[in-house]
Amino acid sequence: MKQYVEALEIHTRGPGLLDITAKVAGVVRVSGLRDGLLTLFVRHTSASLLIQENADPDVLHDLEQFMRRTVSRDTRLYRHTTEGPDDMPAHIRSALTQTSLSIPVKDGRMVLGTWQAIYVFEHRDCGHSREVIAQLLGE
Amino acid sequence: MKQYVEALEIHTRGPGLLDITAKVAGVVRVSGLRDGLLTLFVRHTSASLLIQENADPDVLHDLEQFMRRTVSRDTRLYRHTTEGPDDMPAHIRSALTQTSLSIPVKDGRMVLGTWQAIYVFEHRDCGHSREVIAQLLGE
Amino acid sequence: MKQYVEALEIHTRGPGLLDITAKVAGVVRVSGLRDGLLTLFVRHTSASLLIQENADPDVLHDLEQFMRRTVSRDTRLYRHTTEGPDDMPAHIRSALTQTSLSIPVKDGRMVLGTWQAIYVFEHRDCGHSREVIAQLLGE
Repeated sequence: MKQYVEALEIHTRGPGLLDITAKVAGVVRVSGLRDGLLTLFVRHTSASLLIQENADPDVLHDLEQFMRRTVSRDTRLYRHTTEGPDDMPAHIRSALTQTSLSIPVKDGRMVLGTWQAIYVFEHRDCGHSREVIAQLLGE
Repeated sequence: MKQYVEALEIHTRGPGLLDITAKVAGVVRVSGLRDGLLTLFVRHTSASLLIQENADPDVLHDLEQFMRRTVSRDTRLYRHTTEGPDDMPAHIRSALTQTSLSIPVKDGRMVLGTWQAIYVFEHRDCGHSREVIAQLLGE
Repeated sequence: MKQYVEALEIHTRGPGLLDITAKVAGVVRVSGLRDGLLTLFVRHTSASLLIQENADPDVLHDLEQFMRRTVSRDTRLYRHTTEGPDDMPAHIRSALTQTSLSIPVKDGRMVLGTWQAIYVFEHRDCGHSREVIAQLLGE
C-alpha cells in the first residue's frame, strides 16, 4: 500500500461554504492511487470541513444563516473576545462541524453521492488562507 | 495491507436513528480482515451517521426531539424550500452530525464500547433507501 | 504498511475539555511509524473528541458554556432521565461533536496546525475514566 500527501491552500472570501471538490478530485488524480482512503484535515479551529448539497446555492446560504442564529455573536456571552465578535462563534461553529473527513476512493474516484460536494466552511468575517491536508492511503 | 469495500443499502422508515451495527459487523466478518481501519461513508446530505447509546430506545427518541427543537422547520427561515419543510432542516441536521465514521478493527471486531451502536440518522419525513459505503483497510 | 494500536485511559475531572495532545504525540512516537494515518476513537457516548484552540483557556470555558446554553438540562424535555439531569444532555453533546478523529502523520508528527490541540470533551457532571483507542496505519 502506498501513500500520497498534498497540502492545499484555500483562499476563503468571508463566512460561508467554499466548494473544493474539484481541487480534491485533482489531488486524487495526481496521486495515481485508484483504490484507498482519502483523509482531509483542516489545520485551523475557526474554519472547518463539511460535505453538503452541491446543487442549490440556497442550501449554503441557509446553512450559514442557521449558524448565525444558533451561535450568538453577543460578546457578553463570551470571555474569549480579544479577536472580535466573530472569533469565539467561529470556534464553536468549527466544533459543531468537522476538522477531518474520511472518503473512500474506488476506481480512481471518491465515492461521493450525486448531490455531495466537499466544502471549506469559513467562520470568520474576513477571508483567510486556509490549509487543508489531503492524504491518500491505497493502491 | 488489503482492502475490502461493500455498499450497504439501508431502508429507513422516516425520521430517527436506525441501528446498522449488526449489518456493519457482518461486513467486517465477510472481509476476512482481522486488524485495520473501517470507514463508513453515507452518500447523502439529508441522512447522516452517528455512534450513540444502544441500550435505551428513549435516547434515540430524545435525540430526534432535540434536533426538532433546535433545527426549526419554519420555512420562512429558509430560501431552500422547494422540497418541503423537512428538506433544509435535513441538510442542517446532517451538517451537525457525521457523513463519515472511522472505527478501528482489532482481532476481527470493531473496537466499539459496550454501549455504542452505529446508526443511520434519517432526517427526512419519509423513509428512504440510503447507501452507506463500508471500507476496510488492513490485514 | 504497518499497524500500531494503543488504548489510552483518560481520567476526566467533570464537564469540559481535557487536552490529550501530548499523550497522543507519545503514542505516535512509540509506534515508530513516520508517515501514515492516526485514528482516535472514544469508546463512550457521553464523552467525545474535539480538535480545538490550544492557546487561550477561555475558549474551552466558552465552548462548555455554549453547550450548556444549547443543550438544556431540563428533565421535562427528556424521557431518558434515569441517570440524572446530565445524562441525556451528555448524549446530545456527544452527537454534536466527534466520536472519531482522523489525523495524518508526516515525518513522525501529526499535521496539527499551530493552534490546534486534541481534547477529550467530558459531558457528564462527574469525572470518569474514558478509553480512547489510538491506531496508526503507515510506514
